[in-house]
Amino acid sequence: MNQKEVTIAKPVMLDKNFFSGHSVDCVILGFEQGEIKVLLLKWKAFEKWSLPGGFIGNDEDLDKAAIRILQERTGISLPFLEQFHSFGDVNRKGKESFLSEIKSLIGHDSNLINWISQRFISTGYLSLVNIKKCNLVPDELSERCEWVSLNNVSNLIYDHNEMIKMALQKIKMQLNYLPIGITLLDSKFTMKELQLLYQSILGKEIDRGNFQKKMLKLDILIRLEKQNLGGAHKAPYLYKFDKLKYKKLLKKGFGYIN
Amino acid sequence: MNQKEVTIAKPVMLDKNFFSGHSVDCVILGFEQGEIKVLLLKWKAFEKWSLPGGFIGNDEDLDKAAIRILQERTGISLPFLEQFHSFGDVNRKGKESFLSEIKSLIGHDSNLINWISQRFISTGYLSLVNIKKCNLVPDELSERCEWVSLNNVSNLIYDHNEMIKMALQKIKMQLNYLPIGITLLDSKFTMKELQLLYQSILGKEIDRGNFQKKMLKLDILIRLEKQNLGGAHKAPYLYKFDKLKYKKLLKKGFGYIN
Repeated sequence: MNQKEVTIAKPVMLDKNFFSGHSVDCVILGFEQGEIKVLLLKWKAFEKWSLPGGFIGNDEDLDKAAIRILQERTGISLPFLEQFHSFGDVNRKGKESFLSEIKSLIGHDSNLINWISQRFISTGYLSLVNIKKCNLVPDELSERCEWVSLNNVSNLIYDHNEMIKMALQKIKMQLNYLPIGITLLDSKFTMKELQLLYQSILGKEIDRGNFQKKMLKLDILIRLEKQNLGGAHKAPYLYKFDKLKYKKLLKKGFGYIN
Repeated sequence: MNQKEVTIAKPVMLDKNFFSGHSVDCVILGFEQGEIKVLLLKWKAFEKWSLPGGFIGNDEDLDKAAIRILQERTGISLPFLEQFHSFGDVNRKGKESFLSEIKSLIGHDSNLINWISQRFISTGYLSLVNIKKCNLVPDELSERCEWVSLNNVSNLIYDHNEMIKMALQKIKMQLNYLPIGITLLDSKFTMKELQLLYQSILGKEIDRGNFQKKMLKLDILIRLEKQNLGGAHKAPYLYKFDKLKYKKLLKKGFGYIN
């Protein structure tokens, strides 16, 4: 048995007592250069990417496991994090189980191999974060983490593509109850950035005038000084959210119809 | 060991190989006499009620388990059924585990007792049904099933009250994407019945004129003959849903702001 391989594996599955048959996967979304991006991990042993995920301690609440996993990968400790769906198909791992590749990472301890080869139901959590505030750290089985534009997501491991699709669908359905702008944008932003954010989440063009009218009507924006672009161009106004009003309205539902 | 007790238990937990540590609970809602009602089961051995639930076959998809459980309790085979949340707190069973009462029902087989005493993560499913179309059958551990008005729900077992609360919250958040009317109402209904349904789901009064205007604007209602009340009262119109338009709009989201 390769000593190095075992060292890699232990922190993930053996150092703690993990709850059998249940895992957590996180769809962590950020917004950069006018695009929604998802945090993905590149595996060490093979050319595949996956969502950040992990197991649940025997004495750990499901929600707490998700908070811990998010924190371990991004350094964010007070996240917006919400469960969106549990994935429980018998064959959700698909035909390729990557078992031999995973063995090369975790060693050949048969108990461990049996444990991770069993059926897992995985609960998906959605997190919305400000990319600039993240300090990315790959897990023990991954080479690196990256923010990947939704348009560039490859064939992920297991049912992780479906997880992202489902998370985006839930965002659309609960648009009026999710803190979209306040989590994903910087503290100051232009109306255009806010519109681009909604466009990329809804996956469609939105009329500029209508959008601005609706957003201003919500009474959650504070208009700041004009952005100084240092040129002859007409500078756009900067806005920030009125946090108190934002929170209050979020509870009630924004009432923004997409 | 009491033979009768074992006979009761076997179909529930031993006849099939069930997936360890994960269960399903169903919040099944109907609408009757202007009220939302939830389907509850009264335990055989003790004075407690719970949501219909069950375990997941080792070779059974999570969603399929929920469909089966719903069908076993209500006879409904083509339901509206959607997962809404998984409950995974370590202490979700609370202080009262009812273990001695449950033992009196399932016998004292220590394997079985250990199996059901372990930690379970439970996935909650929401179903919206027409009460008249249900054929209620209690499970092996229950004395009877009943439709209970939301206002009359007692202290249920484990975290089942929280499950109902969470299901109702999700309904409000996803109101525009759930087939509220078409699942819960009879095929013909008055505008007042539709309004009462929305009122009881939202838990608040809705202005009659506004509601009617919004609903008609959605263009999913077909107006039928006036209801014959056989008296001198002004008879209200009956409506039915245009199923094709209803389905199409549901996909897009109703755009009904509560």
